[in-house]
This record gives sequence, structure tokens and C-alpha cells, in this order.
Amino acid sequence: MVKKYGGSSLSTVEKIKRVASSIAKEKKKGKNLVVVVSAMGKTTDNLIRLAGKAGYSEGRDFALLLSTGEIISSSLLSLALQARGVPAIAFTGRESGIYTEKIYNKAHILYIDIAQIEKELKKGKVVIITGFQGINENGEVTTLGRGASDLTAVAIAQSLKANVCEIYSDVEGIFTADPRIVKEASLISHISYEEVLEMASTGSQVMHGRAIELGQRHNLPIVVKSTFGKNEGTMIKDKKGLEGPVVSGVSLNENEAKVSIFNVPDSPGIAAKIFTPLSKEKINVDMIIQNVSKKGYTDLSFTVEKIDLRRTLRLIKKAGEKIGAQGILSDFNIAKVSIIGLGMQSHPGIAAKMFSTLAREKINIEMISTSEIKISCVVKEKDGKKAVRTLHKEFIEKR
Amino acid sequence: MVKKYGGSSLSTVEKIKRVASSIAKEKKKGKNLVVVVSAMGKTTDNLIRLAGKAGYSEGRDFALLLSTGEIISSSLLSLALQARGVPAIAFTGRESGIYTEKIYNKAHILYIDIAQIEKELKKGKVVIITGFQGINENGEVTTLGRGASDLTAVAIAQSLKANVCEIYSDVEGIFTADPRIVKEASLISHISYEEVLEMASTGSQVMHGRAIELGQRHNLPIVVKSTFGKNEGTMIKDKKGLEGPVVSGVSLNENEAKVSIFNVPDSPGIAAKIFTPLSKEKINVDMIIQNVSKKGYTDLSFTVEKIDLRRTLRLIKKAGEKIGAQGILSDFNIAKVSIIGLGMQSHPGIAAKMFSTLAREKINIEMISTSEIKISCVVKEKDGKKAVRTLHKEFIEKR
Repeated sequence: MVKKYGGSSLSTVEKIKRVASSIAKEKKKGKNLVVVVSAMGKTTDNLIRLAGKAGYSEGRDFALLLSTGEIISSSLLSLALQARGVPAIAFTGRESGIYTEKIYNKAHILYIDIAQIEKELKKGKVVIITGFQGINENGEVTTLGRGASDLTAVAIAQSLKANVCEIYSDVEGIFTADPRIVKEASLISHISYEEVLEMASTGSQVMHGRAIELGQRHNLPIVVKSTFGKNEGTMIKDKKGLEGPVVSGVSLNENEAKVSIFNVPDSPGIAAKIFTPLSKEKINVDMIIQNVSKKGYTDLSFTVEKIDLRRTLRLIKKAGEKIGAQGILSDFNIAKVSIIGLGMQSHPGIAAKMFSTLAREKINIEMISTSEIKISCVVKEKDGKKAVRTLHKEFIEKR
Repeated sequence: MVKKYGGSSLSTVEKIKRVASSIAKEKKKGKNLVVVVSAMGKTTDNLIRLAGKAGYSEGRDFALLLSTGEIISSSLLSLALQARGVPAIAFTGRESGIYTEKIYNKAHILYIDIAQIEKELKKGKVVIITGFQGINENGEVTTLGRGASDLTAVAIAQSLKANVCEIYSDVEGIFTADPRIVKEASLISHISYEEVLEMASTGSQVMHGRAIELGQRHNLPIVVKSTFGKNEGTMIKDKKGLEGPVVSGVSLNENEAKVSIFNVPDSPGIAAKIFTPLSKEKINVDMIIQNVSKKGYTDLSFTVEKIDLRRTLRLIKKAGEKIGAQGILSDFNIAKVSIIGLGMQSHPGIAAKMFSTLAREKINIEMISTSEIKISCVVKEKDGKKAVRTLHKEFIEKR
């Protein structure tokens, strides 16, 4: 069995010892246990801040710096287990055989050589693995991107052919909406990979998107639950053939900003010219909307993460000059509200109901984007929470 | 050239940037530069404290935990150099090719494979190396003991055939006595390996003993100087054939405790039975004095580091029972004062002068130990500083 513990569950040695105690209980049941850990509390943020102060936050040595966070938490958890008499060993990405692309940060996992892990499991040891990191073909340390310890856990679980991957954090599981915003929000017991993916991309910070995708690809059940709580948590698995509610959850994402480019001469290849420089810089573009404005010209809007806005504007200014755009505007103060549900596919009229619900509350919609199982609307940031509460009441509480 | 920076010179990112600025200046002179770093400020102490809280501070994963301190400082220094446009790369013990014994903590360096370092130097990069750590034949991380970053630096300098190894810290160099205790103490410009070794073993925290030994074995000049100061520092090198002062320096060591074993039946192998268990536990015994007490019985006293006293007493109690000792006493509150000087060998009467100087100040001597270039006296801890001042006045200021 593979268990993964998030940074908030390991933020102090006291908490690490509580986690060790619960692992020790599980180990008594005689199971093969692999534990993937994030860095303690805000360690990674602190390391990023130090690199920022040093003046350079890229490349090989930035990855090396960040990798220390999980080495500290994994070795401390292993020491805490050994202090209890439980045989344990801490493995870095290297020792876990996690091979990634050559790129140093936000690298993708290429393959996992599980020989070393299996060897230690056979000796009866609990193997504690640093999340978030691997090595490239040159043996250099790489990192997998923020929050990617989830990805490490699912990838290890899949490689070991585990029957479930448990993700422990300070949340009880996946809720119909953020309980801090909607007090009526309820815990979802079962949900499909697709819905969780849409929730993640729409702002519900339940789990790392690439981790869920990997689980889906291999049909590996993932349980999201609280480290120190008593709830059963949420099981993420294939829901094909199951009849579910039309709308499973409502999401709010306040981390995105909007960029609009006006009066672009409309010719083939325009979008590529705008978005290729962004993708080269690893800036994730979320919603993209293109409208014809006047004859032969087009307007184009998209959203990026707020932290990427400055870099985006710099790149877009260059690209905009090349393609002859007439103006670029950005809006930092937006929010994206989304409703998600597998059932949407077979229920017409959901979008119309969403728009009229928002209209009734006098919330103006600035952008709309839809998929088969999701509808997202960009609204003013100040309207975001109210929109979520209204939609949750309409689609979840009334069902 | 090899430069080593201590933790106090790297305790904040601001200081790391100042170090980067001075390395950048050196690099402009076109030199091949290798920089060895300690962990930032009190990082290692903090990690040891965390492991203590976790309940287990030994073995493989304890070494892995401690190794993160220097990975953080080395990668931050490399990032700070890259921010200034200076090509740099941070190397862990593994990448530096530092191979050690299999033992995880306080391991000795077996050999250094400098191929990777030379490869990066040829590319024009400043190579920043984590002090204090290496890997064993299984590729596991090992550490070399507290303060052993000095050892890393000298070993790397020797392997690279550098003509000098510079050790930077917050002290100006080696003084005739601790300036915090003796305000008349002066900076020594040249000193021999032997004298520094005696000073280190007698309590002057100038540099790691094993590092000086290694320098001596390969006749590698070592310069000890201040990171942010302007002094030339102290050059440690072979002084054969040079006439120096009789006494070079006066040392105080307040970190040791005394253990006495009384009425041990005097038979061959007694000392071995007492000290073998200590050496197995890696407890360093410093002074050893054996006296005949009454017919067929002997008394034996020795000193160990204060932090090792509890473990020592536990082991000695066991050994004492086996060999039929009648009593064991320990004294935590002692100090060791020493005078050191190559010139002593050819100047008789130095010991007598030391004893009479202390007697004049009514300082009682509890133990005496001599070597060719050093005389040490154990006194009450409360008399230590006064003894140093008195001896410094007599042997250094009057010369």
C-alpha cells in the first residue's frame, strides 16, 4: 500500500511522530508499506524565498535546493519510525529510481525503476520516499513542480501495482464546494477522475492534476482523506456506468488573471504566434476565448495564473507588436466559478440555469468556457464567493 | 584554488551574496575556483535537534538528514553567483566524487574521484561543493563528523593539487590566545601544522584537526582568515628549519570532563579493557594518566568531551565491574590550559616555568600531560581563564 502525507501533516516533529504512530499500526497488519512525503509545512516556500533573495530561481541548482525539503521530512519520519522500533529507510528520488526528463524543474517522470524499493520492502522495511523529485539521465536532481508529491505517490503506487493510493492531508476529502465559503458543502464519498480533474483545474485544491490523470490512465483508485481526522475521505475511481447527480461540485478559482488582446488582424497562425512563446516559458494558459470584433480583426482573451501575469504581459507585448495587435488589457481582479458533473453530459439546460442563477444575483459574466462535464464563468473577483454560494444552493442543496 | 567558507559566513542570504561577490572578483582573475561550504549558521544544530525530537539520531537516515544543510548553502551560493552572471554549479558529496567508509556518521574519506569537478572547471564554472559529506560504496550519503567541512576542503585541494587551501570564517586567523579571554592576544602570521594540531586538540577552535593532519601529510599550505575582514590571516605550513618563538600560543579547553577510576588491580590489558569500549562507541579520549596507588593497584584518570561524559560513565561502569575497580569518580567542572610551541623541544625548563607561574597565582594543577611541543594542565574550570591570561603574559607578552 502507498500512503502520501502532505506538508501540513508533517509541519512539526510532533506531527511527524503522530504520522509515524499511525504508520506503525498499519505496519503491524503485515502490509508492504511505502510512504511518500511532502516537505514539512512551509519549507518549500521558504526555500523558494531564499533563492529569490539570492537572485536566481531557475535551473539545476534551484532544483537541488528545493529537493532538500523532502529529504528532511523523509529522513525525520524514518528516524521517528526507527525510534519506535519499526524498520524504515528514507529514499531520495535517486534511490527510489524515479527517472525524469532532463529539464530541472517541473520535469515529467519518464519511468520508475522499483528494484531498490522492492529490495527494502522484502527486508520488511517501511520505505519512505521523498515526493516531488527524481533524477535525470545524467544523475542530476530534478523536481516535478509544486504539489507534485501526489504525482510521485500515484506513480510509485502504479509501478508497485498497489491496489490503492492514499493521499493524506489536512482536508477531510473532496467537498461539493469549499466549506470555508459554503457552509452547507458536504463530503463526496465517491467521485470520478474526470470530475476531480475539472475541479482541480477550476480551482479546488484537492489534488495535483497530473496525479489524477495518472491514476485515471491506470485505473488506480485514489483515496483522499484527513491525516488526523476520522472520516473515510473521498474515493476517486472510475464511475463509468454509475448514475450520479447532475452536478457534483462547485469550484472557485481566484488565482487567475485575465489578458485581452484587441483588434488583431485575423489571419491563420495568429493564436500560435501568441501562445507559443507562453508555452515555451511554461506558462499555463487556462481559458481561451476568441471573438470576431470587426471585419478582418479579432479579439482574444485568456487567463493565466496571477503569478505568471507579469511575464505573460512582457511576452504578449512582443508577440502583439509582431502580429499588429492594437491594444492589450489585463485584469488581475477576476474569479472563475465552475460547476462540474459527469451527469451534465446527458442533462441539457444546465448552462442556461447557471447563467440565469448568476443573473438573478446581478453577477456579471465576463467570459464563459464549457466542456462536456464542466461550465466555467469568469466574474469580478468580489463576486466570486457569492457566485459559489448561489450555485451550490441551486445545484447541490436543492437536488 | 580552493576556498572554504564556514557557517557563520553563510548564515543569511545577504552574507551568501557578499561571499558570492568576493568569489566573483577572484574568478575575474581567471583562476580555477573550487569553493567548499558549511551549512548556513546553526542549520546543522537545528537538524540535530529535530532528529533528537524524533527520538533517533543515528545511522543512515540521520546522515541523510544532516547532509541537507550543506546542499542548501551550496545551491544558494551557486544561485547567487549565477545571478551575478558567474557560471557556477553546486555539487553534493556524491557529485564531487567523495567516497568514504561505509559507516554513516563521522566517516573517513577513502578517496576522491575528481573527474566531475575537473570537467566543470574546464567549462569555466566555479564548482561549489557541500562540505561535511560523501557517499559510501553503496552510494549512500555519509557525513564526516562535526566541523569536517574543513576536511573536505583540504582533501579536495590536495586531490586537485591546488597550491593553497583558504579557510574563511568569522575569525581573523590564529591568535596567541583566545582574544575574548586575553585582550593582549595577537594574530600569528605563520605557524606549523604541529602547533595548530596541538592548539586544536587543546581547545583552540581554529580548524578541524583531521583537516590540518591531511594538510601536513601532503605539505599543503592552509590559510585561515576572516571572510569579511581585511587581515591577511594565518598561514599554516611546514616551519622546518625556521627559528620561531619558544611558545607560539596558549589554549583553553572547557569542553572536557574528567573521569577517575580508583584501585584497579594492576594487570596487563587493563587499559585496553577500559578504553576499547569507548573507542568502539567513537568516544574520543584526550588525556590519559595512570598512577600506581598501592601495591598491585593502580589509579587511572582521563578526559573526554563533556557531551560524551554520560555515555562514558555508563560504559566505564560496566568495564570497571569486569576488572574489579573500587570506585569511579567524574568531574564536569574542569578546564585544560596548554602552552604550545615548536621551540619547546630545544628549550628546557618550560614546564617548570609553567607550573611555577600557575602556582604563583594559587591555581591548583590536577593533571599534567606533555608532548614534545605542548604542555597541558587540567585545573578547576573557574581558574581556566585566569590561567590562560597569566601564561600568555609570562610566555608571549614578555618574549
